[in-house]
Amino acid sequence: MRLTRPFYLRKIARCRQELADRRLDGLFILNHLSIWYLTGLFHFPTERPIGVFIGTEEDSPRFFIPKLEEDQIREIWDSNIETYFEYPGVVDPLAWMCGRLADLGYGNKRLAYEGNIPVGHKEALCAALPGVDWREAGDIIAGMRLVKDEEEIQLIRKAALYSDFMVEEGVRVVKERGLVSEIEILEEVVRRTVDKMLDELDPIVYVSGIASGLVCSGERSAFPHGLPSKRRIKRGENLILSFGCIVGGYNAESERTVFVGSPSAEQRRMYEAVREAQEVGTTALRPGSRCRDANRVCLDVLRRAGLWEYVKHRQGHGIGISNHEAPWIEDGDGTILRAGMVVSSEPGIYVPGRGGYRVSDTVLITEAGPERLTSYPRDIEHLIIDI
Amino acid sequence: MRLTRPFYLRKIARCRQELADRRLDGLFILNHLSIWYLTGLFHFPTERPIGVFIGTEEDSPRFFIPKLEEDQIREIWDSNIETYFEYPGVVDPLAWMCGRLADLGYGNKRLAYEGNIPVGHKEALCAALPGVDWREAGDIIAGMRLVKDEEEIQLIRKAALYSDFMVEEGVRVVKERGLVSEIEILEEVVRRTVDKMLDELDPIVYVSGIASGLVCSGERSAFPHGLPSKRRIKRGENLILSFGCIVGGYNAESERTVFVGSPSAEQRRMYEAVREAQEVGTTALRPGSRCRDANRVCLDVLRRAGLWEYVKHRQGHGIGISNHEAPWIEDGDGTILRAGMVVSSEPGIYVPGRGGYRVSDTVLITEAGPERLTSYPRDIEHLIIDI
Repeated sequence: MRLTRPFYLRKIARCRQELADRRLDGLFILNHLSIWYLTGLFHFPTERPIGVFIGTEEDSPRFFIPKLEEDQIREIWDSNIETYFEYPGVVDPLAWMCGRLADLGYGNKRLAYEGNIPVGHKEALCAALPGVDWREAGDIIAGMRLVKDEEEIQLIRKAALYSDFMVEEGVRVVKERGLVSEIEILEEVVRRTVDKMLDELDPIVYVSGIASGLVCSGERSAFPHGLPSKRRIKRGENLILSFGCIVGGYNAESERTVFVGSPSAEQRRMYEAVREAQEVGTTALRPGSRCRDANRVCLDVLRRAGLWEYVKHRQGHGIGISNHEAPWIEDGDGTILRAGMVVSSEPGIYVPGRGGYRVSDTVLITEAGPERLTSYPRDIEHLIIDI
Repeated sequence: MRLTRPFYLRKIARCRQELADRRLDGLFILNHLSIWYLTGLFHFPTERPIGVFIGTEEDSPRFFIPKLEEDQIREIWDSNIETYFEYPGVVDPLAWMCGRLADLGYGNKRLAYEGNIPVGHKEALCAALPGVDWREAGDIIAGMRLVKDEEEIQLIRKAALYSDFMVEEGVRVVKERGLVSEIEILEEVVRRTVDKMLDELDPIVYVSGIASGLVCSGERSAFPHGLPSKRRIKRGENLILSFGCIVGGYNAESERTVFVGSPSAEQRRMYEAVREAQEVGTTALRPGSRCRDANRVCLDVLRRAGLWEYVKHRQGHGIGISNHEAPWIEDGDGTILRAGMVVSSEPGIYVPGRGGYRVSDTVLITEAGPERLTSYPRDIEHLIIDI
């Protein structure tokens, strides 16, 4: 599954309109996610720069790419593709791209760049095109990415289904194999999921990292970003299954805390507080509300439960072509939620030396309110693995 | 396997000496690879910035990290660790870090930043500390990374052994299972390799991407960066097995072109040209020579063989904590090779619609000349899989 050329032409048209409104003559894009979002050209960023120029004159973007990436781009675009041989090159690739823009008549125009490019790249642009009036306009594409189209939502829905499948399989692996290691759970879940995705999805846009996650057990589950280890799970412990995957370039995540054997009274109390915070916080993700207000009511549940000392992160984050993107469901983000935004809702608490608790769903904001795209059960009785 | 605190203290001391020589009062690092290299703190870069300040007054670096990463850093460092709650935060995390630097008396000093940080980050630094005389000094850490210490070389040697193991296993999977898909080869190789690494290495610094690669067959092998697909390999085809892995944070790669059944006269001729280019190019990787000269003699073999139209990339690149880093074995890099540098030597040709040929070794430059750290056979008879 992947988006097709009409989708990208529509996005590019919107970008050109935005440029025209700001009286800018073009946008020179060097960020791999912006390129992926606007043109469908996927690449892992390396030292070899890829540049895409969106002018106001032409429908098609203009691509400047290293020779060895040429074949892949031709799957979507068939014109305005120019290549350079290598990096670093006798002529610097960015200087060459700027030279081509000058040849095309942009040498003394008003052009935009995105503020997420490295300082060194911006300096190269300014040095190579000193006659250009360079303006920062990173908010054009960032703004477009905030609200998802129906096509993008379809991909995220599909990714959400696979993310739920990953949690299901995580539980299944423990039921089948018993007290295995964190790494064994992760590896087996990823293997089953990639196999399933390869069977069902066509074409696969890219493979590396298409499904992945974190698996932390016992006292290690108190590290929110702990990497899976050789530690074997034990009876009586929490196990955080934190999974996500990518369909057609779009991410979703599903995360549950499960219990290896019957949880103690303390585990139940902690879990219920997190589950309630997630419920309250998710309900607050309504169009017209502000991100920071959802975050406040969500984390207030944990404050009131006397668990604030164990809170280490916000309620959630936007999700799309990046697994973390704006808007941020956090105190510092006043963005007003709108239908078509997709965010994670994932409060957690982390008790040092004992264990962590987190529940995450991928949530679509609709006119009618929040819609959870992931739906693995959240009630504690469904999260107990009897082994 | 991982490097220990004495290694990092030595690197930091060298960095501080370099700052003193340039009359700089400190280096403020925001790049995840620079942080990893200099302090051993590994993290996947996200929207939450991590800052490390190297002053000239203290032995220990000063860490500014999000609260949820706090536990992991304490495995190496135990002081000068300050946390912020979240991103984006009511106070911007970079502004907070700069405020702390001002509290520490650096508000009107001469401080360095690295040019690989985003434009937006540099602007935040300048806005928050307008009294600082900010200087670009990305070459300090980049310069240190060029030549590897004995401890780093040991990790790369180990990674090279596993990379060879991956090629071996790729061949074995085809022998065992026959005409399978590219993806199946990759998945099975990664699974066997990660299992082996988890058994043998302790501790594992991080897991995601610890072993990975590209597997392209038939006409798809003519895409140098083609991603593994569901395409099944066929008799009579080329199969490029391009693998690499990471030990203690350090990379190596081993890549071979193998033949499914007996190669044709054309395949033999093409392969032999690439093998000879790799031999000549590798021999040219001697201390005192320039990177561009090795690249020239390497690619000259392909030019003389009349295959220039099929060449799509340089001879190679440096390899270390990044799988692609300086120096670049390319026409535009005049760096003089020195003992302790580690580079890939990987010329290739790519015949559209027919197939690609590439041989890559990870090569250590020693006083006595090049030493291949990967040693899977390169003679064609060893690369034919009889099935």
